[in-house]
Amino acid sequence: MSASALAIEVPSGFFFSAVAAGLKASGRPDLACVRIPAGASAAALFTTNRVVAAPLEVDREHLKRSRGRVSFLIVNAGNANCATGAAGRRDCERVCREAARLLKLHAESVFPSSTGVIGVPLPVEKIAHALPELIAGSAAGEQAAEGFARAIMTTDTRPKIVSQRISAGSRSFALLGIGKGAGMIHPNVATMLVYLFTDIEASPRELQTVLRPACDDSFNCISVDGDTSTNDTVLLLASGASGVSLRSPGVRAKFVQALNEVCKQIAHEIISDGEGVKHVVRLRIEQARDRNEAMRIARTIAHSPLVKTAWAGADPNWGRILAAAGRSGVALDPRRINIFFGDLQVCRGGVAALFDEREAHAYLTQSQYDVRVQLGRGRVSLDFLTCDLTTEYVHINADYTT
Amino acid sequence: MSASALAIEVPSGFFFSAVAAGLKASGRPDLACVRIPAGASAAALFTTNRVVAAPLEVDREHLKRSRGRVSFLIVNAGNANCATGAAGRRDCERVCREAARLLKLHAESVFPSSTGVIGVPLPVEKIAHALPELIAGSAAGEQAAEGFARAIMTTDTRPKIVSQRISAGSRSFALLGIGKGAGMIHPNVATMLVYLFTDIEASPRELQTVLRPACDDSFNCISVDGDTSTNDTVLLLASGASGVSLRSPGVRAKFVQALNEVCKQIAHEIISDGEGVKHVVRLRIEQARDRNEAMRIARTIAHSPLVKTAWAGADPNWGRILAAAGRSGVALDPRRINIFFGDLQVCRGGVAALFDEREAHAYLTQSQYDVRVQLGRGRVSLDFLTCDLTTEYVHINADYTT
Repeated sequence: MSASALAIEVPSGFFFSAVAAGLKASGRPDLACVRIPAGASAAALFTTNRVVAAPLEVDREHLKRSRGRVSFLIVNAGNANCATGAAGRRDCERVCREAARLLKLHAESVFPSSTGVIGVPLPVEKIAHALPELIAGSAAGEQAAEGFARAIMTTDTRPKIVSQRISAGSRSFALLGIGKGAGMIHPNVATMLVYLFTDIEASPRELQTVLRPACDDSFNCISVDGDTSTNDTVLLLASGASGVSLRSPGVRAKFVQALNEVCKQIAHEIISDGEGVKHVVRLRIEQARDRNEAMRIARTIAHSPLVKTAWAGADPNWGRILAAAGRSGVALDPRRINIFFGDLQVCRGGVAALFDEREAHAYLTQSQYDVRVQLGRGRVSLDFLTCDLTTEYVHINADYTT
Repeated sequence: MSASALAIEVPSGFFFSAVAAGLKASGRPDLACVRIPAGASAAALFTTNRVVAAPLEVDREHLKRSRGRVSFLIVNAGNANCATGAAGRRDCERVCREAARLLKLHAESVFPSSTGVIGVPLPVEKIAHALPELIAGSAAGEQAAEGFARAIMTTDTRPKIVSQRISAGSRSFALLGIGKGAGMIHPNVATMLVYLFTDIEASPRELQTVLRPACDDSFNCISVDGDTSTNDTVLLLASGASGVSLRSPGVRAKFVQALNEVCKQIAHEIISDGEGVKHVVRLRIEQARDRNEAMRIARTIAHSPLVKTAWAGADPNWGRILAAAGRSGVALDPRRINIFFGDLQVCRGGVAALFDEREAHAYLTQSQYDVRVQLGRGRVSLDFLTCDLTTEYVHINADYTT
C-alpha cells in the first residue's frame, strides 16, 4: 500500500515532524524526527562497509548504553557525516545532546541518522538552530508520517511508505515502513535508510531475532549498482502502545509475515526508484546447491555492466547472463544451465534455445519482468531484485559542476 | 612502439595473412592466420570463466597432444563459437582439420581462436571456403602483421601492435605482441586476445614459466568493466628462427624484461581503446599487507559504477573511492587511508584533506592520470589500469536493433 493511493496505517505512540534546516540546496525539508514519548524497543542493522559514518558509531553505542531503547529518532538529509573523523563524531553527539536537552532525555535514547555528501563537515549549527521548531511540530497521523518520508529523500523521486494493520483477537497493531533509496547522485553518496515502526509490544532482543531474516530476504537481495553505502541503516522500533504482545498466541507469526512483506515492498520501491532505472528485473536463481552460491551468482549477474546495459536496451542477449554466471566463482557446469525471460526459454543446456527474438525483445521492453537462471545443481532458489544501467544513471552520477 | 608511428619488428619464422570471409557485417577482414612452417614452441593462458568457448577447449587438447607445438594459428572475428555445445566443438575441429589438410599438418598443431557473438553457430562453411585464399596469402613482414592485427579487431577502433628487437651478442631476437580489446558491443560479447610472437629458441615449458608472471602484472591488472570473457586467450609462440637461445647467458633476463614491457604496453592499449573510454586511470594501491588484498581493493574501486561515473565527470569525489575500498572485504582502518590525485592529496587519515577542488577537477579532466590509495597496513604496492564509465559505454552496449 503506497502513500499516494491508500491510507497510511500509523502505529500508536509515534510523533513525526520535518523542517527545512538549510542542508539541501533545494530548500526542501531536510531534517526529520520521530518522537516516542513512552520510549520504544529497538533493533537495528547497519552497513557492512568498513568505512562507517559517525552517526552509525553513535547509534551502536547509544543502543548498547540504553539497552535497546529509543525515544527520539533524528535524520538529516544532505550530509552523510562520513569521513569526517573525530569532529564528525563530536558533531553527531552535539546534535543528540541538544535534542536530549530540549526533550529532557538521556542522550543515549536518541538515534541519529545522516545521508548525503561524504567528507564534508556536518552543518551542526543549522541543525541545532532548527531543532526546537522540529520538535514542536511533531504530530501523529498520516500527514506527519509522509512529511518525515519526504524530508529524508535525497535523489529519490518519491517517498517510500508501506504499511499494514493486523488484527490480533479484539485488538490490532500496525506496522509502518518508511525508506529512502539506494541511488546515488553527485555530490551526494546516498544511502539506504529504512525505519520500521510498530506499536506491538516486544523486547529489543525479540525484535532483533525477527529483523535479521526479514532483511536477508529483502534489503540483502537488492542491488542498484553494487555499491554499499557507508550509512546504510535499518531500524525497527516497537512502542508497545497497541497493547498487543509479540508473545501472545499466534501474534509472532502474523508479525513476522507482515514484517517480511513490508520489507520486501520497501525493497521493491527502492529498486524501482533507483537512479535512471527503466527496467526492474526480478532475477530468480533456481536449482542452486545452497543460498550462498545462489547469492554469488545473482550478485555477479546483477552487477555486470554488460548484462545491465543489455537490459537497458531490451536486448535478449542471454550470452552475457551465461558469461556472468560463469565468472561468479561457483563451479558451474555450463551444460546444465537454462535461462528464461518470463516463460520464454532462451538458453537450454548452455546453448541457444529456439526462440522468437522479437518476442523476447518485446518481453524485455516491459518496465518490470522476470529473468530465471536454472543451475542444475540442487534445490535452492533465491529471488533477487535489480535493474538496468542506463545513460541516465551515468548522467546523474557523472555530471559535475564546479 | 606502436605500429602507426614506428616500424614493426617482426620476428623470423612467422607468416601472416587475413581475408574477409563474410563473418563481420561490415565486410572487413575477419579471418586471420599465422603460419609457422618450422613449428613453434607454445605457451598459453586462458580465461578463468567457467563458461568456455569451444576453441579454448580444442586449444587445450591440441597443446597437450602436440606437447606445446604450434604450426598454424587461425583466428576469426564476428563469432565467439561459445555456448554452442557439441556442435560448436565439432565446427571448431572441422576448421582445424581443413587447415591441417591444406597445410599437410596434424590437426593438433593448429591453434584456433574465435571472438564475437555468443550462442550463434560458427559459420564454418564460410571459413572453410576462405581457407585456401587465406593460407595462400600468408607473408612475412610488417604489412602482413598489421593485416592480421586489423582482422582480429571487433569493437576496437585501432589495431594493437607492440614490438621490440633485442640484441644478444652478435645476434638479435624480436618480440611482437598483437592484441584485441576487452570492450564489448551488441550483439558481440568480445574478448581479449593477445598473441606474442618471438624468434627466440625456447621450450614450451620455459615459455610457460615466463608467461604467467608477465600476464599477472599486465593483463590481470586491467579492467574495463569487470566482465571476464568466455574466450580470453594469451598465446606465446617461439619459432627459434633467430638462433638465440633463452638459455644463453644473459638472454633470459632480457627476454623477461621485453615480455613484461610488451605485455604492459598491450594492456595499456586495450584499456585506452576500451568502449567509450574518456579517461585512463592508473590506479595505484600502496601500503597493502600483500598483493592479494591490494588486488581486492583495486578491483572493487575499479568496478564501482559510482567511482567510474565520477571519473567520467572529472569529479574529485574521493568519498566514493574511500567507500568502495571500505566494502572490498579487507579489514581496513579508514583512519589510516590517504588518497591522492597525482601529487594532490584529497583525503588524509580517512577525512578530507585541504585541497583546491578546481585544481583537482582540472587534473581529472586529463585523458590519463594517477589515483593513489595508501592503506597504512604494509609495504606492498600494486599498479592497476582502469577507466571511466561513460554514457558512450552504455550506448554501445545497450543499443539494440531487431
